[in-house]
Amino acid sequence: MPLSSPIAVDAMGGDKAPEEIVAGARQASENHGIPVVLVGHPDKIQDHGDLEIIPALESIAMDAEPGSSVRKMKDSSLVRAAEAVRDGKASAMVSAGNTGATMASALLRMGRIKGVARPAIATLLPTPGSTSTVFLDAGANAECRPEWLVQFGKMGSVFAQHRLGISEPRIGLLSIGEEPGKGSPFVKEAYEEMSKASWSDEIFLGNVEGRDLMSDEVDVVVTDGFTGNVALKTLEGSLKTLMMALFTALGERPEAAKAAEVLSPELGELYNVFHPDSYGGAMLLGVKGVCIISHGSSTALAIENAIKVASEMVESDVVGNITSAVSEES
Amino acid sequence: MPLSSPIAVDAMGGDKAPEEIVAGARQASENHGIPVVLVGHPDKIQDHGDLEIIPALESIAMDAEPGSSVRKMKDSSLVRAAEAVRDGKASAMVSAGNTGATMASALLRMGRIKGVARPAIATLLPTPGSTSTVFLDAGANAECRPEWLVQFGKMGSVFAQHRLGISEPRIGLLSIGEEPGKGSPFVKEAYEEMSKASWSDEIFLGNVEGRDLMSDEVDVVVTDGFTGNVALKTLEGSLKTLMMALFTALGERPEAAKAAEVLSPELGELYNVFHPDSYGGAMLLGVKGVCIISHGSSTALAIENAIKVASEMVESDVVGNITSAVSEES
Repeated sequence: MPLSSPIAVDAMGGDKAPEEIVAGARQASENHGIPVVLVGHPDKIQDHGDLEIIPALESIAMDAEPGSSVRKMKDSSLVRAAEAVRDGKASAMVSAGNTGATMASALLRMGRIKGVARPAIATLLPTPGSTSTVFLDAGANAECRPEWLVQFGKMGSVFAQHRLGISEPRIGLLSIGEEPGKGSPFVKEAYEEMSKASWSDEIFLGNVEGRDLMSDEVDVVVTDGFTGNVALKTLEGSLKTLMMALFTALGERPEAAKAAEVLSPELGELYNVFHPDSYGGAMLLGVKGVCIISHGSSTALAIENAIKVASEMVESDVVGNITSAVSEES
Repeated sequence: MPLSSPIAVDAMGGDKAPEEIVAGARQASENHGIPVVLVGHPDKIQDHGDLEIIPALESIAMDAEPGSSVRKMKDSSLVRAAEAVRDGKASAMVSAGNTGATMASALLRMGRIKGVARPAIATLLPTPGSTSTVFLDAGANAECRPEWLVQFGKMGSVFAQHRLGISEPRIGLLSIGEEPGKGSPFVKEAYEEMSKASWSDEIFLGNVEGRDLMSDEVDVVVTDGFTGNVALKTLEGSLKTLMMALFTALGERPEAAKAAEVLSPELGELYNVFHPDSYGGAMLLGVKGVCIISHGSSTALAIENAIKVASEMVESDVVGNITSAVSEES
């Protein structure tokens, strides 16, 4: 499915908006030839080159209450971006803004895919030497019902197939022990539901643990949005803490600093593999359109990657494939 | 409170038992003058030097079902170690064995401190450049009631005071956003309970996130045992993955390997700071005795550190102080 219309980029969302967002949008257009349209306040967007702008005079703050903001701020960049997708003026949306408001805009304006109980945020976790792990729900639903996790597994598998090229995704349920009886009552029920679900290409592995998230033993890990968000932030926080401790340690002794310089290709590569900017954003699965959620601290590179992912997801018709996968089940 | 009796070490528990456990016990005795008694099968314990043995002819497997094993295997090293503490023949117990069975032995043989709803596992998370973070419940209770988290906070604070010397511990509640309204229904209720609790020296900070676990913004983080275990294993898994990727990357180019050699003091130090063996084990808080739970993969060094911690916890009377803290509340 070729791009029939440009990718709508929320120019106002993110800690480094609009400058880094606009720069990333231009990079995606100039380096990869991806059509992009910016959404935001025309007076506040500078240096946008050839990129067109869909005007939106309001912007939802990073810490605003999502539901009410989206309902009230109809001329916000997020709401306008989601409308552009709904109306076919854009083929996907990308935002580094308020995550809750991005979800709410997508859900209210694009709508939910028929049969989807709840959309979920799927993110990628780096797995050195192997394909990344698809991890969901990374925070869309702080409270879940056990049976939703079956659907998260199906949507996550379609995402793994299209985003990572994994033909038979192996799905794990996040718990605190590998044996079926391990975990909270919620997880035990989810285990039951997932065991008796009918899978097509997927393989349900059973329980996996926090330490398996970055391993090549599993392709898709499902959990509720509370546990998922805690695990994701713990993972990102640990990587960042260790990476910073490493760089601090290497700069202290003059001989060490010199040796670290020799190692800069290795250290740079490591930094790239483990840095969130490289993964290209998370995707909200279950809505009628491609919605890529980038980190609040996104740099131009992160936005460029997020736009590339958005474009690939449109081209591989991930939304159509999720629609089929979900309808087969009911 | 000086040690009136030795530290009982479960010689049979752990992936590397009995060899590494016995070696660690001897190191604690020889390097730090801590009195230690081994608990286990006398025929299977070699090279125990001057250390005495409390005979226990059974041992509970790492993957055995905890409750029934402890009930049935009355002559197991874990049960005998807990009994030794109960009977005053030992002043604390240390095990790297089956965590659930260690908890069950301690709970059934030593008993629960009056007023404690549920014992919880408190572990330390490394915080570079600052005191570690006390994190609980790391897995004792897969299902919790919101009000238990208040008590976890109190027990964790006493532990932070005695283990880390923090006089006014700052307590955070693990959630998925800092604002009071963020989180699952369970966490929102726990937030209410913690807000209205009467604290003595402690300061309740409100919600913290996964990325704060290794920061110096908070001293004690409380959560339910399911989320806690997922977060702990995610944190340990991420650190291990990044550390391994680092060591792999540094060994590939000959020039890189040479530079890495120059950096060995820094890399060694980093490895130590972030390796679980250095923290000295987790502690089961809320039982009538000191019970230190060491990693299943504990080396001699990990056991030596765990025994040091056990001895410090006896000397600082952490159990007596938890008893007072809990009784003040009711």
